Amino acid sequence: MIIKMKKDASLEAVNRVLDYIQEEGFSIKDVSSERVKIYGVIGDTSKLEARDFYAFTAVGEVIRIQAPYKKASREFQALDTRIDLGDGVVIGGDQHVVMTGPCSVENETQMMTIGAFMQKHNLKILRGGAFKPRTSPYAFQGLGEEGLKLMRKVADTFGLKVISEVPSVSAIPMFEQYVDIIQVGARNMQNFHLLKALGKTRKPIFLKRGLSATIEEWLMSAEYIMDGGNDQVILCERGIRTFERYTRNTLDISAVLAIKELSHLPIIIDPSHASGRYKMVDPLAQAALAVGAHGQMIEIHPEPEKALSDGAQSLTLERFERLLTHLQPLADVLGKTIT
Amino acid sequence: MIIKMKKDASLEAVNRVLDYIQEEGFSIKDVSSERVKIYGVIGDTSKLEARDFYAFTAVGEVIRIQAPYKKASREFQALDTRIDLGDGVVIGGDQHVVMTGPCSVENETQMMTIGAFMQKHNLKILRGGAFKPRTSPYAFQGLGEEGLKLMRKVADTFGLKVISEVPSVSAIPMFEQYVDIIQVGARNMQNFHLLKALGKTRKPIFLKRGLSATIEEWLMSAEYIMDGGNDQVILCERGIRTFERYTRNTLDISAVLAIKELSHLPIIIDPSHASGRYKMVDPLAQAALAVGAHGQMIEIHPEPEKALSDGAQSLTLERFERLLTHLQPLADVLGKTIT
Amino acid sequence: MIIKMKKDASLEAVNRVLDYIQEEGFSIKDVSSERVKIYGVIGDTSKLEARDFYAFTAVGEVIRIQAPYKKASREFQALDTRIDLGDGVVIGGDQHVVMTGPCSVENETQMMTIGAFMQKHNLKILRGGAFKPRTSPYAFQGLGEEGLKLMRKVADTFGLKVISEVPSVSAIPMFEQYVDIIQVGARNMQNFHLLKALGKTRKPIFLKRGLSATIEEWLMSAEYIMDGGNDQVILCERGIRTFERYTRNTLDISAVLAIKELSHLPIIIDPSHASGRYKMVDPLAQAALAVGAHGQMIEIHPEPEKALSDGAQSLTLERFERLLTHLQPLADVLGKTIT
Amino acid sequence: MIIKMKKDASLEAVNRVLDYIQEEGFSIKDVSSERVKIYGVIGDTSKLEARDFYAFTAVGEVIRIQAPYKKASREFQALDTRIDLGDGVVIGGDQHVVMTGPCSVENETQMMTIGAFMQKHNLKILRGGAFKPRTSPYAFQGLGEEGLKLMRKVADTFGLKVISEVPSVSAIPMFEQYVDIIQVGARNMQNFHLLKALGKTRKPIFLKRGLSATIEEWLMSAEYIMDGGNDQVILCERGIRTFERYTRNTLDISAVLAIKELSHLPIIIDPSHASGRYKMVDPLAQAALAVGAHGQMIEIHPEPEKALSDGAQSLTLERFERLLTHLQPLADVLGKTIT
Repeated sequence: MIIKMKKDASLEAVNRVLDYIQEEGFSIKDVSSERVKIYGVIGDTSKLEARDFYAFTAVGEVIRIQAPYKKASREFQALDTRIDLGDGVVIGGDQHVVMTGPCSVENETQMMTIGAFMQKHNLKILRGGAFKPRTSPYAFQGLGEEGLKLMRKVADTFGLKVISEVPSVSAIPMFEQYVDIIQVGARNMQNFHLLKALGKTRKPIFLKRGLSATIEEWLMSAEYIMDGGNDQVILCERGIRTFERYTRNTLDISAVLAIKELSHLPIIIDPSHASGRYKMVDPLAQAALAVGAHGQMIEIHPEPEKALSDGAQSLTLERFERLLTHLQPLADVLGKTIT
Repeated sequence: MIIKMKKDASLEAVNRVLDYIQEEGFSIKDVSSERVKIYGVIGDTSKLEARDFYAFTAVGEVIRIQAPYKKASREFQALDTRIDLGDGVVIGGDQHVVMTGPCSVENETQMMTIGAFMQKHNLKILRGGAFKPRTSPYAFQGLGEEGLKLMRKVADTFGLKVISEVPSVSAIPMFEQYVDIIQVGARNMQNFHLLKALGKTRKPIFLKRGLSATIEEWLMSAEYIMDGGNDQVILCERGIRTFERYTRNTLDISAVLAIKELSHLPIIIDPSHASGRYKMVDPLAQAALAVGAHGQMIEIHPEPEKALSDGAQSLTLERFERLLTHLQPLADVLGKTIT
Repeated sequence: MIIKMKKDASLEAVNRVLDYIQEEGFSIKDVSSERVKIYGVIGDTSKLEARDFYAFTAVGEVIRIQAPYKKASREFQALDTRIDLGDGVVIGGDQHVVMTGPCSVENETQMMTIGAFMQKHNLKILRGGAFKPRTSPYAFQGLGEEGLKLMRKVADTFGLKVISEVPSVSAIPMFEQYVDIIQVGARNMQNFHLLKALGKTRKPIFLKRGLSATIEEWLMSAEYIMDGGNDQVILCERGIRTFERYTRNTLDISAVLAIKELSHLPIIIDPSHASGRYKMVDPLAQAALAVGAHGQMIEIHPEPEKALSDGAQSLTLERFERLLTHLQPLADVLGKTIT
Repeated sequence: MIIKMKKDASLEAVNRVLDYIQEEGFSIKDVSSERVKIYGVIGDTSKLEARDFYAFTAVGEVIRIQAPYKKASREFQALDTRIDLGDGVVIGGDQHVVMTGPCSVENETQMMTIGAFMQKHNLKILRGGAFKPRTSPYAFQGLGEEGLKLMRKVADTFGLKVISEVPSVSAIPMFEQYVDIIQVGARNMQNFHLLKALGKTRKPIFLKRGLSATIEEWLMSAEYIMDGGNDQVILCERGIRTFERYTRNTLDISAVLAIKELSHLPIIIDPSHASGRYKMVDPLAQAALAVGAHGQMIEIHPEPEKALSDGAQSLTLERFERLLTHLQPLADVLGKTIT
């Protein structure tokens, strides 16, 4: 951490800062030029908040050099984290996992159709919303526990794993009972109360990036979970908010590369939420595979026009089958196995 | 709601959309031009989600004309909502309420000093954080229930009201016991699970705008609370995220005017979080008063250099006293009473 | 165009709006509901500015339904525009053109090395900056006309086409003399004076997307050029500004798909400027090919550490060669020819 | 400037960076910790571009400590710049200048009405657009030189100064003939070719902030003009682009305070463009005065419904008169003179 003092700071005010730093157990290097006093703070500064130093009247600018996250960082762990879900499904290695399913779990027919379809195509991870976070209180809010039960039943029938979004701390025990991966939605990325509680479960966590979150903030949220004791975190880029309105969000495809440089955690892309338009999902899925993501999450629905939520971005089973035929030859070229 | 069909949509696909609209109980007006089919959906469309229509293959564009919120809207209630806290403190009328206190409750000395200071200046609403949402798991997280008790004690000693941020649904009963206004933090603005639960309390809710939320999303979050049965909602603009990094956030002062046009709910400004710089708080507070906000929330600390959080934006008691002497003559000119 | 009147608008004020619309030669359809007066404006509304209607006191909201651009739109021209540069190089069809060269033209050795390298790899379009737009007046500003001459010489030696960024209207004649494609930089995307003048040249224009431009604004800038008489416009997505700072900009890869839906103009991706990091260029280039872009522009430099500008995002010739070996098998699978 | 090396950088690669720094005439201080090599670059680093260092393979991160602008900075000049326009009009001191006039100059009647109105209210600076930058090529583009002549005539009749936006370098001589202040529009803020040319005039420059520009980029654009030899630069905050669409842009009122801290140049607010809504102009103008801006620019029109551009944000003369009666008592309290 580098601290630049104000030009007109008194010696006494500067010393108050330096004393504080030393009391906290850090050492100091002087990098001052003739015009301005600058100090380097040496030690494990991940425990310091840069902003707090601005309370000192002498401080002009504080610049963090060490990342504020630790356990999530590539420096802390050089090797890629691999999350083994059993039955040969591993996220974070050479498999390119294609999670799929409907936005909302609606009824048994819908889910059984999808389960059979997935089995046929050798796909392993079933997604589906049972508790839906909707911006309108008047919109369909999901089937609740009924939905989770249904997913579990379908998964057990067809040999699948289940992922679903948890709405709150109090629902965690229920989720532990039914699902294999617990999803944290974009709007809960900084629900620190929830993150802490998820640090205590033994289920892998699927952490969606917040709507306007920076990569650093996202990794800090992973850090919360890991610091709580659960190092099974999967990151999911699902589009960020930009000025562009033609797409629902803007897929930040470079985030895959940034995460791979900064962290050892697996990174998945969600082209359905990122674009919000079913026509874009197929080419974006190809790009996601080409750029090196560890997998994707794609929404499908047997009859999108009758979906109770997000039909706009759901593929029909026919379109999704076509998508798979596009991914396969690319995966072959790139040396990846689609799961 | 206006629905524009795709140029090449088949008659049959268009009819599927029109049938659906009529089944849902709406009527239709044809506004088609020669080149493109366009339909108006007539009825209470606040219950429709525009995005859902894109699932129909015929639909090109959906344009919402009615606001998606209802109870929060000025059209629903023409008169300003006034929230009466007792002892003559009313938010939403001619009073300009200046809520103040430390970022975090730290200890009794700090709080008693601030309580006595507020009594001396005839200020009525004490703020303070007991459960702090921190981006780093390694930062000070607040005193918890101890902090709430301390605030209540100080408030009772000096005749004050208490406002504090609730971390989760499970903490609501505890908050109902100690505070007069329950605050929802910016990062929880779309924690719908929490919003629903707050609809069931009888305490006024202080709803901070999310970091990148639009005004419409913010009002939709108010709608969640109101739809649950609690119409005592106060909105707080606390700065939004922009590309500018010199300030912590960017105060959207026009939001005060937008809220007053679109809604009947009171609107407060938080210049401390908006700027993150104590030097800017005084002139921004003057601007907030001039633009017509119903009040402000300003962080103070007897010794900002020793604050356990957000000292950077806290005013010393001396600086805050000076700020009050700047606000008073403006309030006189503008016909407002500072409380 | 849909015009929603204010709830409390007087009949007389509403009629002033309707009279104006009819005087301008449009017809009107009434879509009013019981609660609010709404009118559809029928005709070629691309010539109307939605904002202008807000000057009428009766007008509450104006919603554009027809795109404000015309010649650039897919509705105006269904078939893809193909830009034939001669010698078999065509942008906008099945070729995937890989334009390459240094950020800045520096000297003859540098350029001859690159020219020979391109010939060897059968690449056809040489890029290079001669007039550099730099955010700092103290940074290297380019070789000027000397740079253009050098590019022309190298291109003629190795059978290449030249693309370079034009700084101003007065430089257009000079560019017409030396280059095959005239580039408009991101910061000039809304320099309307320049766009108008480029409408008068017969050279193809390479129009970079502005730093925070929406796709609609970008297509409106293309419209300026096309309306001036030059329909040879190539669009280039080069990353947009977001809150993320790890990458220089954020590559909006979905923009390729949006442009292909909305327009008939070719769309190129610039992974070098989008990421600002040479390590990301290779995987992003693979994604750009997979998503269906008509080509890319990639910066290279024989010795990036000695580059006078943007060495950070320039590939060495070795890295670029490796990139080409990655693109080739993907192009084979996707049925594209790399040029 | 602080340079952090990559963890795995070779000694030889690190030394290449250090050699380069010393060759450029800077000295180096070592601030390395045990885990990572970090160096401070000592000297006038405003001439270095941080990004350029990333071309070195050893470099992990470069952090600028000195501002990249110099002549525009408060450190370079402690005293406020005052721009004396003659006849007692000074921008940058205790006067709060209210520039006003129509968006577009339309005809003599309009302008003479406004001129007489300004004289009556003792306002001194007449604004008006003669060359309008319009996002649509089909919209009214202004009267051109005729418009400038008309403004000059009105100004000479009523003892006013003239400000108008310059479209291009070639128009500068024409503007020098007619106007007192040359305006650079938001879309030209990084038209470096234009900025350089304006460094050669002796007229004061009114530099609008770009739509998504940071304060640093804005000051860098001022630096271009000042480095060219013209230190008469006035900055104008006119709203920035955010996700909020209810207002045309978002007024960044804190920018006034940031500019006053970072620079000695005067800062003006444009509430008309910032909000795009005439109803918001009055309260925003009060806030702009309260926050300490050196003045404002407000659009008026005798008949906004008939304006050829931006009627939506223009005040009628009656509304503007009312605004002035609101500003006056605030100015008295704040010790400012409205000019």
